[in-house]
Amino acid sequence: MKTVAFGEIMLRLSPPGYSRFVQASQFDVVYGGGEANVAVMLAQCGLESEFVTALPAHELGQCAVNALRRYGAGTGHILRQGPRLGIYYIETGASQRASKVIYDRAGSSIAVAQASDFDWDIILSGASWFHFSGITPAISPEMAKAVQNACQAAKRLGVKVSCDLNYRSKMWTVEQARAVMQPLMESVDLLIANEEHIRTILEIDTHSLPVEDTNLTREGCLQAAEMVNSRYHIPAIALTQRRSLSASDNRFKGMLWKEGEAAFSPQHTMHIVDRVGSGDSFSAGILNGLQKGWSVQQTVDFAAAACCLKHSVPGDFNLCDEAEILALAGGDGSGSVQR
Amino acid sequence: MKTVAFGEIMLRLSPPGYSRFVQASQFDVVYGGGEANVAVMLAQCGLESEFVTALPAHELGQCAVNALRRYGAGTGHILRQGPRLGIYYIETGASQRASKVIYDRAGSSIAVAQASDFDWDIILSGASWFHFSGITPAISPEMAKAVQNACQAAKRLGVKVSCDLNYRSKMWTVEQARAVMQPLMESVDLLIANEEHIRTILEIDTHSLPVEDTNLTREGCLQAAEMVNSRYHIPAIALTQRRSLSASDNRFKGMLWKEGEAAFSPQHTMHIVDRVGSGDSFSAGILNGLQKGWSVQQTVDFAAAACCLKHSVPGDFNLCDEAEILALAGGDGSGSVQR
Amino acid sequence: MKTVAFGEIMLRLSPPGYSRFVQASQFDVVYGGGEANVAVMLAQCGLESEFVTALPAHELGQCAVNALRRYGAGTGHILRQGPRLGIYYIETGASQRASKVIYDRAGSSIAVAQASDFDWDIILSGASWFHFSGITPAISPEMAKAVQNACQAAKRLGVKVSCDLNYRSKMWTVEQARAVMQPLMESVDLLIANEEHIRTILEIDTHSLPVEDTNLTREGCLQAAEMVNSRYHIPAIALTQRRSLSASDNRFKGMLWKEGEAAFSPQHTMHIVDRVGSGDSFSAGILNGLQKGWSVQQTVDFAAAACCLKHSVPGDFNLCDEAEILALAGGDGSGSVQR
Amino acid sequence: MKTVAFGEIMLRLSPPGYSRFVQASQFDVVYGGGEANVAVMLAQCGLESEFVTALPAHELGQCAVNALRRYGAGTGHILRQGPRLGIYYIETGASQRASKVIYDRAGSSIAVAQASDFDWDIILSGASWFHFSGITPAISPEMAKAVQNACQAAKRLGVKVSCDLNYRSKMWTVEQARAVMQPLMESVDLLIANEEHIRTILEIDTHSLPVEDTNLTREGCLQAAEMVNSRYHIPAIALTQRRSLSASDNRFKGMLWKEGEAAFSPQHTMHIVDRVGSGDSFSAGILNGLQKGWSVQQTVDFAAAACCLKHSVPGDFNLCDEAEILALAGGDGSGSVQR
Amino acid sequence: MKTVAFGEIMLRLSPPGYSRFVQASQFDVVYGGGEANVAVMLAQCGLESEFVTALPAHELGQCAVNALRRYGAGTGHILRQGPRLGIYYIETGASQRASKVIYDRAGSSIAVAQASDFDWDIILSGASWFHFSGITPAISPEMAKAVQNACQAAKRLGVKVSCDLNYRSKMWTVEQARAVMQPLMESVDLLIANEEHIRTILEIDTHSLPVEDTNLTREGCLQAAEMVNSRYHIPAIALTQRRSLSASDNRFKGMLWKEGEAAFSPQHTMHIVDRVGSGDSFSAGILNGLQKGWSVQQTVDFAAAACCLKHSVPGDFNLCDEAEILALAGGDGSGSVQR
Amino acid sequence: MKTVAFGEIMLRLSPPGYSRFVQASQFDVVYGGGEANVAVMLAQCGLESEFVTALPAHELGQCAVNALRRYGAGTGHILRQGPRLGIYYIETGASQRASKVIYDRAGSSIAVAQASDFDWDIILSGASWFHFSGITPAISPEMAKAVQNACQAAKRLGVKVSCDLNYRSKMWTVEQARAVMQPLMESVDLLIANEEHIRTILEIDTHSLPVEDTNLTREGCLQAAEMVNSRYHIPAIALTQRRSLSASDNRFKGMLWKEGEAAFSPQHTMHIVDRVGSGDSFSAGILNGLQKGWSVQQTVDFAAAACCLKHSVPGDFNLCDEAEILALAGGDGSGSVQR
Repeated sequence: MKTVAFGEIMLRLSPPGYSRFVQASQFDVVYGGGEANVAVMLAQCGLESEFVTALPAHELGQCAVNALRRYGAGTGHILRQGPRLGIYYIETGASQRASKVIYDRAGSSIAVAQASDFDWDIILSGASWFHFSGITPAISPEMAKAVQNACQAAKRLGVKVSCDLNYRSKMWTVEQARAVMQPLMESVDLLIANEEHIRTILEIDTHSLPVEDTNLTREGCLQAAEMVNSRYHIPAIALTQRRSLSASDNRFKGMLWKEGEAAFSPQHTMHIVDRVGSGDSFSAGILNGLQKGWSVQQTVDFAAAACCLKHSVPGDFNLCDEAEILALAGGDGSGSVQR
Repeated sequence: MKTVAFGEIMLRLSPPGYSRFVQASQFDVVYGGGEANVAVMLAQCGLESEFVTALPAHELGQCAVNALRRYGAGTGHILRQGPRLGIYYIETGASQRASKVIYDRAGSSIAVAQASDFDWDIILSGASWFHFSGITPAISPEMAKAVQNACQAAKRLGVKVSCDLNYRSKMWTVEQARAVMQPLMESVDLLIANEEHIRTILEIDTHSLPVEDTNLTREGCLQAAEMVNSRYHIPAIALTQRRSLSASDNRFKGMLWKEGEAAFSPQHTMHIVDRVGSGDSFSAGILNGLQKGWSVQQTVDFAAAACCLKHSVPGDFNLCDEAEILALAGGDGSGSVQR
Repeated sequence: MKTVAFGEIMLRLSPPGYSRFVQASQFDVVYGGGEANVAVMLAQCGLESEFVTALPAHELGQCAVNALRRYGAGTGHILRQGPRLGIYYIETGASQRASKVIYDRAGSSIAVAQASDFDWDIILSGASWFHFSGITPAISPEMAKAVQNACQAAKRLGVKVSCDLNYRSKMWTVEQARAVMQPLMESVDLLIANEEHIRTILEIDTHSLPVEDTNLTREGCLQAAEMVNSRYHIPAIALTQRRSLSASDNRFKGMLWKEGEAAFSPQHTMHIVDRVGSGDSFSAGILNGLQKGWSVQQTVDFAAAACCLKHSVPGDFNLCDEAEILALAGGDGSGSVQR
Repeated sequence: MKTVAFGEIMLRLSPPGYSRFVQASQFDVVYGGGEANVAVMLAQCGLESEFVTALPAHELGQCAVNALRRYGAGTGHILRQGPRLGIYYIETGASQRASKVIYDRAGSSIAVAQASDFDWDIILSGASWFHFSGITPAISPEMAKAVQNACQAAKRLGVKVSCDLNYRSKMWTVEQARAVMQPLMESVDLLIANEEHIRTILEIDTHSLPVEDTNLTREGCLQAAEMVNSRYHIPAIALTQRRSLSASDNRFKGMLWKEGEAAFSPQHTMHIVDRVGSGDSFSAGILNGLQKGWSVQQTVDFAAAACCLKHSVPGDFNLCDEAEILALAGGDGSGSVQR
Repeated sequence: MKTVAFGEIMLRLSPPGYSRFVQASQFDVVYGGGEANVAVMLAQCGLESEFVTALPAHELGQCAVNALRRYGAGTGHILRQGPRLGIYYIETGASQRASKVIYDRAGSSIAVAQASDFDWDIILSGASWFHFSGITPAISPEMAKAVQNACQAAKRLGVKVSCDLNYRSKMWTVEQARAVMQPLMESVDLLIANEEHIRTILEIDTHSLPVEDTNLTREGCLQAAEMVNSRYHIPAIALTQRRSLSASDNRFKGMLWKEGEAAFSPQHTMHIVDRVGSGDSFSAGILNGLQKGWSVQQTVDFAAAACCLKHSVPGDFNLCDEAEILALAGGDGSGSVQR
Repeated sequence: MKTVAFGEIMLRLSPPGYSRFVQASQFDVVYGGGEANVAVMLAQCGLESEFVTALPAHELGQCAVNALRRYGAGTGHILRQGPRLGIYYIETGASQRASKVIYDRAGSSIAVAQASDFDWDIILSGASWFHFSGITPAISPEMAKAVQNACQAAKRLGVKVSCDLNYRSKMWTVEQARAVMQPLMESVDLLIANEEHIRTILEIDTHSLPVEDTNLTREGCLQAAEMVNSRYHIPAIALTQRRSLSASDNRFKGMLWKEGEAAFSPQHTMHIVDRVGSGDSFSAGILNGLQKGWSVQQTVDFAAAACCLKHSVPGDFNLCDEAEILALAGGDGSGSVQR
């Protein structure tokens, strides 16, 4: 049971606490990125995972490798080449002040890599799942091609493919994203997305679906999933529903639809320590449940609980273990001290 | 468009996080004070501002100068003289435990300065507004005189005057404050105050005004402003209304009355990172709107949003820019991550 | 008026902020333990207190002594012997993620001490109260014996005895606890406990008592206290009632029953900075009120306010002074800045 | 065997590491002052000590009390009155850049105290030594009078008096210092000083004494001590000799002359972690030796070793214990790891 | 007297203390770059200075602007455009382990700027000196052209030109550097360089000059300066001579040759806190002396002292003031505490 | 080429900078131990390594696993069992103040493990070297047996054995050490030791060997090695020679004797950042050279350079890579900035 995740891992720099960028005399340093976050959380759940990317040969590249190794993700297929490590700066918001992200990822080692640098037949050998997000093909046309190559190799090798649809408007246009992402859908066995992205990128017309309190109703979610399935023939579709009350408080719930069967997680209301990577935890939670043969309901409850708990952990990685997540998925959100 | 603010800037020392004074082995160091906070926020809004004070010639005085320069406030008329930099210690409260301030400002350079040390005709040359708060004349009789001199010079030079009525009982008695502040009102073009201070210091009888949930109603605010205007002939009056739910959560709303026209901001409920300087942000927000010719409604909405956002920024200074404040004033308080 | 508290004080190691153990490159260092926490809070209230334990002769043992001295607790009867200082690691939870405690106290100096190492006639000389919790006799059979010896000496010397029933399942079984704690009750003048522990350890059948929202009703509390009094003849019984909404928010209220008279504190809802030691604050608050001859109502209000405020103070010790606690007990929970 | 030390304890604020004042966003916080440093080191040596001063009643005053209690110095006679805690800012130098101290002690609680606030018959009851330095009488004429009162009471009560001559030109003139210090010498049983201060303040003409490498020779030291003894009839005189190679490296040696017998310590060359309080360690070292009846040679060797080791300890206090100091005094300066 | 310096200012990220990159969980954050360092030090000396560059419009660009403003350098001509802020990572070495720098400056706002973005007639208006280093033209061909434009404008406007020859092999080849730098020499009024760079870049044959202990002798320095002057007609030439004993200890001395008159500074041996920017301090020291009309000897002594002191200040900027530097230049390197 | 190292890895807690234990409010947290340090350094040199131990199943045990994984050491055979993680506290000395270590390792998971818990035929499968130190068999009689088992398995499997003789008097007596270590020597292919330990533990009579400046001369080293070889038939013997000038400065040199051929490293003088683990670096350096087939001279030069550089790296692990060590071994100790 091995998952291979492919994407960019970046140096993340953030002013301590709630300081703003212009106040900082130190930055907290961690490493993260959507697909790396998935690989790390799967490792916390006891599954084998591998993260594939390109990183510069120098010490900063090594730092990113070490962050992955430290938390148990495999790094054996990471290319050590190219000029620089991508960076993202993040300032933690509070109350009505939003968290702010400044990306500095142009020209990174993966951004200048060639599709041909990655030999997917070797990389995916022995894997059971291949995971990517909409961010990876947005990095460059070469990386879009690398994802296509990976998906084709996956199909060849009987490796399942999961995709977090994640659209980032700073990286490419909706038109570019549609042109790349829609064809990829034919390889996808599990799609994770929110309503906005299936509407804009996959062009599923969700306008007439029933809405309640800014989110689709359960019925609306169900229909949305069926519309995606009907058009793209994806066997499993997970929908996320977030509501931002403030930078300090969010609500989250999720749905998993699998071959006609749907289950909805309870809604969690979270005080936020760190907002980043919570969607990746949901993805990893779904992958964990599917790989372990859990029921649709168990799987979506686990994934939503993983997402919820991630909001309480600083950094990109969800460093909660399976037992902790299962406890919340099983209904214990009291936060009583564990002695 | 230049605002000259006059008052004391202090070294602010605070135990990290929620530690109490008796636990601290380090103090976080920033610099701030009511009028300096106004000058800095105006600079963040792209307006020219200048802060006038007296600071010791040594390195700690330089630190205060540097803090102002760093964030764009002018320091060209700061006197470098006198024995010491005023200090305030602040311990950040949480939940039912209040934040605690210990002042150590006696004998500071501005407290021992002479009124004649400040040549207002030079200082106010080219300015459009002069700003002070009720704290400045409370520093010493000489500084009360300096404020009087400044107001007279302002009138001479066609510079408008704004005053944040702020009464501090640790600095002078109500009687002393009345004797100094009431005569100053005749020079004031914009008064910022809360109901308690216009009642106690300006002796406006607000007892019979309608109240709701510990604050004046809209109608009550309106009448209060008109009573102040009627007695002191101040053309613009801004009222602040705060409710402290706990040391961690407050509510705030404001009103601006200008020549008979009144507008009320929405009420904001804030999780508090740093409570200090939020009132100064409201003052600066009003000044920004008036200087930019915004409507009364736009101005008070902006000022209340500035006040609200300040609660999320550590330190005295409101290091939010105009665009961020306008976004909240425009209704977006969701705190969604800005990527 | 001197209280002698007996138990273990440990080195407490915690990752900064909300970091998890696996993320930490630094640990915050404080010292604490249930009975030490009581001694320190009594010292903050201006009462004489003394903490008795065994600590290794090396520098880490000295650190624990110094922590007590720093906050005014007496250390004159601490034994400096044995191999090591007990440790507990604590990771601060947030939202649905619980705080997690890992104990590393086996083999500590007090765990390997002999009952005969403590000469209670000397130690309790001049004391008015002796305080222990259910943790102390759980440390070892020798320490159970030491507590028995202390209780007997207290009775001999006219020293009153208070006991916080606190049962820790990691330290001993329910059966072991019953066998030790029940006989000790005959010496106890003040028992502090929650409903669960009087049911399991003192075998008071509370199943039929009226419950509301997971806690006993006032009537239920009253009956529980009377049942304890009826069986164990303890003249004063304080009951605590906590509800954990999440790791970030808790509710607390308390009852004090004394010789037939009962009083209930208001319920406090707390944002949590540090959950540990809040029950000890309640105990110390009751002891403070009793020693100062306050009414039952004043005493329980003070104790609950002390407990509430402790949640806002980092570390084990409640470093609030009596005036602050009295202010909250008197109804001011607004958290307005104290200038 | 109790030593009572009298003087000012201040809040010490220093930028971390080698940062300059203008760079600091945090200050390290400790508490210290010449006489307090002596009291604390004596407590480390197992002797009873008491520090007497005046401190404000607020939390910062409490912090200073707690610092003393933490390290075992008695605080029972500290007055809690007056407006403020004295402060000194210190920036740690390195290499050719000197450490820089900015005093902010004017108007402190002790600076505005009255001589009559201190009842020396009570304070010195049970003491064997009274210690002060030339800084205490320089604080104010009232404190000069308080020192005189203390010395007279000491003589009355058979308490010996030690004085560290320490002259601070920022506090008073040479003429003022002479007028106060010279009469005090008649009460002094132990004088600690360097050559410059006995020349300028005590007006001992050391110009013709033999010098080597900027310091008096042994013969010169001997003659200087005899001249002091001859003029002021002080039975014991300790001379310190420092050479500053850079802010990072200093050399130190000392002499003790007692009733005609003299001994010289070896010279120590120190890498400097913290330069402050090293002279106070020498004073305390002499006092420790004298109180324990050590030989003149043992005493001066211990005092010089204490001074040397203090340079390696951050903060004002010398937190080395007697065994460590004795080891260096005995010749082991290898710094080999102690496992 | 205004100096305009032109170049790149970067975000500097360094692990705290002596930690290696792979150990860091925080980076210390400052901003610096050769020419910015010169501008800042001139401001510390009380001279007007202006730093010209291009910085992104976002908050990180603002941070760099604020760093300059904080320490008094003018920022009025900085372009706010382009994609990113250049970065350099630096790990502080110790003993035999060298400090290590990783540049991440490709694609920065200045690296992608056009020469025509800078209007030198406006920028240099009112300036007396224009300063650049060999790093600026190495950034890009466009920036090489910008430097040429600036030099031509300087000549037109009667502004003197200083150049720190600084060659960085990671940025361009020796051949490229020669082709750009040699023609620029005809505009240069002051050249600062070491022997290696005048040999390799200016192709001055220094091989036969007399050497002692790896550095040119005084006679050799003199001849080298005369050879440069003879070939490039530069009226003032400053030579730096460094010897690295270890990452912790260096030696430095300098020479200034001006129109036939030469002076040599004493040699300084430094314990190193921060090695970066020390050469820039030498350059700024020469510029300060020349602008203030000091003698050649005074000027070189000041410059060498400035360089020496910089080694004791963390960060890129030399935050020593003129008085401190003059004290060392005058011979006081004792590092005695300044109280 | 895989090395399997066996021993204890501990949590290392140290006050920041040069603070003493009694001053600390934070501890820096790393993980280390003699054999783990060897495994990690070999991984930095690009060799496969594996560390074998027992660690508790809880998060602190996981932290130790993660520290090893982060830096590339294998953890696949670590047992997750037993009660606790061993701890050592270390206070960093400076100048004449020695670093101080307090061990708290009794009762750790490895200390209570059984020899039979380790199946060496599986663990050593595929290994080329097995490494242990004198600390491992000192942990407990069971661990002494485990080492014996490992050595026997190594012989069976053709795995070479290296032993760092390291004797710790706090763990066992000389007699106990002799009884265990001497028989183990017959399995040892590489012995690393200093003169004191071969004399006391291996009972080699070195008293008559020639000494210079407290260390054996080259001739003495040679004879010592030959005496060890003659008695214990160990084919390769590495001798370390350290001289502690102070806690801040040490000297180190080494010798490698291999089958009659000897080579001596140059002597290095180090400023010390962190003294711990430097001997382990020497061991790992020898193992690296031997495994890579380097000459005896190259090997000892590399090992001594590795040891030297370790003194500049905080923590137990030597996080220098092979290229850096080779540069110093090749003679470049200038510490010039690497840009």
